[in-house]
Amino acid sequence: MQQLIFTNDVAQALATVTAGKHYNRTFVLVDENTARLVLPQVQSALADAHVITIPAGDTHKNLETLTHVWSELDNNGATRHSLLINLGGGVVTDLGGMAAATFKRGIDFVNCPTTLLSAVDAAVGGKTGINFNGLKNELGVFQEASAVIISTCFFATLPATELKSGYAEMIKHGMLESKSEFDRLLDFDIAHASLDTLLSLLETSVKVKQRIVEQDPHEKGLRRALNLGHTVGHAFESHALHQDKPIPHGYAVAWGLVAETVLSHVKMKMASSDLQALATYVRNNYGAFYITCDDYPTLLDYMHHDKKSVSGEINCSLMRACGDVETGVTISDDDMKAALDIYRDLMGI
Amino acid sequence: MQQLIFTNDVAQALATVTAGKHYNRTFVLVDENTARLVLPQVQSALADAHVITIPAGDTHKNLETLTHVWSELDNNGATRHSLLINLGGGVVTDLGGMAAATFKRGIDFVNCPTTLLSAVDAAVGGKTGINFNGLKNELGVFQEASAVIISTCFFATLPATELKSGYAEMIKHGMLESKSEFDRLLDFDIAHASLDTLLSLLETSVKVKQRIVEQDPHEKGLRRALNLGHTVGHAFESHALHQDKPIPHGYAVAWGLVAETVLSHVKMKMASSDLQALATYVRNNYGAFYITCDDYPTLLDYMHHDKKSVSGEINCSLMRACGDVETGVTISDDDMKAALDIYRDLMGI
Repeated sequence: MQQLIFTNDVAQALATVTAGKHYNRTFVLVDENTARLVLPQVQSALADAHVITIPAGDTHKNLETLTHVWSELDNNGATRHSLLINLGGGVVTDLGGMAAATFKRGIDFVNCPTTLLSAVDAAVGGKTGINFNGLKNELGVFQEASAVIISTCFFATLPATELKSGYAEMIKHGMLESKSEFDRLLDFDIAHASLDTLLSLLETSVKVKQRIVEQDPHEKGLRRALNLGHTVGHAFESHALHQDKPIPHGYAVAWGLVAETVLSHVKMKMASSDLQALATYVRNNYGAFYITCDDYPTLLDYMHHDKKSVSGEINCSLMRACGDVETGVTISDDDMKAALDIYRDLMGI
Repeated sequence: MQQLIFTNDVAQALATVTAGKHYNRTFVLVDENTARLVLPQVQSALADAHVITIPAGDTHKNLETLTHVWSELDNNGATRHSLLINLGGGVVTDLGGMAAATFKRGIDFVNCPTTLLSAVDAAVGGKTGINFNGLKNELGVFQEASAVIISTCFFATLPATELKSGYAEMIKHGMLESKSEFDRLLDFDIAHASLDTLLSLLETSVKVKQRIVEQDPHEKGLRRALNLGHTVGHAFESHALHQDKPIPHGYAVAWGLVAETVLSHVKMKMASSDLQALATYVRNNYGAFYITCDDYPTLLDYMHHDKKSVSGEINCSLMRACGDVETGVTISDDDMKAALDIYRDLMGI
């Protein structure tokens, strides 16, 4: 099982995860941003490590960058007994995880996520990968990190948009966990976040994901619970991208959660008060994703072609109540359109 | 657990492994040789499959070829529910296995080895990979095929050298298994092989490997038993290659087995009669790898730098008797030199 460490003393945590492992060489993967902003904060623990720097941004999460990392490992004496520490956001942990998992048939790696979104999502759960041929995460393997070090100390300099984006995934985990966790998350003011409180919320949130992943490491069933909010969210994201007005992933998830909670309420009798509370929190913190009836055909088309869809039907994970999820619920076009109508009402569009 | 099918009706076996799996698309990976010589023999079972052809030979077991396979999968509608059948020797099964294991975080693949060496070695055991940066199998993952279909019907057209090369690995497995299996293998005339008898010998041989791999899938310990004969064998192979006189891998293993069985006799009291029988079989079927005392320093240098060596010491897997192996035995330079002296005596050099 993947070791999870929640701490604001990352240097100490790095010492802990390498203690007694007898790694003959340690490598640190950073992007241009984390090289500048984060690496200096933990340098004391990584004095002997070889630093590999890659360009920042999802457009560089590709085979060329992966090949660069493999070469750097090779040309600097990495063996099967070496360690790779991925210090960055989702691009660094996804690509670094794939590099480590495929180098000499797998070397140990540790994820040290530096954004809230990667802490709560990409860094935990064993999904590694790169984009290929224009498709997201088209190549990759399932391989868990030996350890994930989760800290909020790197978040102080993150833009508010970044924090909110990650927080949407935390709300999703809260809904999957329990009513009390959901309420605790909606009581927290992410716009003026205390990083200590956030670390405590993160601990529960990441463990929700960890628990689900452990029961379904290769995404055969239960893990689809984590898709909550993402069927509609991905459609919003794709639609916005296609109009050259990209929206942050987490914002799309927040709005998608509202639309899918409408479906949970209508089809699964989830409490109206939960839907109202969620919609209010999302509207106040994320604003609204503006759509009209004219967008419905395009949005439904994206949903029918979602990569999680098996037979071309629209599939959602829905909630009977907080903590009680059902995966793989088929949604008719009419039900989805009705849900989008109510989403627009709730968002004040 | 990996399904093993021993048959001379490969078309039927292919139907069996795909039955009930609901693959939405089947792909077949071949190289230029197996496309011409082997594919027509099983075409009836693969009428709807998309064929991906790669250049033949170890020099093409690289990232460029792997990228070609990934692209072919992508551009011809492969999904997570597709199947890749690797129809070829070790290059095809190693590279195809890696392609499948890393495509969309892993799709099913079936190995159908077309050489004796790949049937007894590469196709079973979950090692996938490609060469990179001038290093053999530098990139790859551990991922077992869903099924391995083992047949001798493709071997009729193999050169005798190829058959003998694979047979050396079978002798190794026989030694690891039992005295009776070892004797049965030395009673078989690989120079005039009956393919039906060979299939029966292969069944035991492959299961020996399968059993060891199951107990140690990621090569942490016991699997090093399979390294029998390879410490000296690899040194012979590297030495020959460096002199621009490459020798087949299996021949190097046969000669390495003799030298290491000398060590087993000297250090572990393995029966002299087993050593004599092995040396006679190898000399008669493989001839001898010619070395003099002047080659010893170079050979020992290769052994000290063997990739399986952890601390720079020479390590061998040795036998107390057939069926009774000890892995990770440290060998002094003097002991190795003495063993090479006796190897030369036994080989008549």
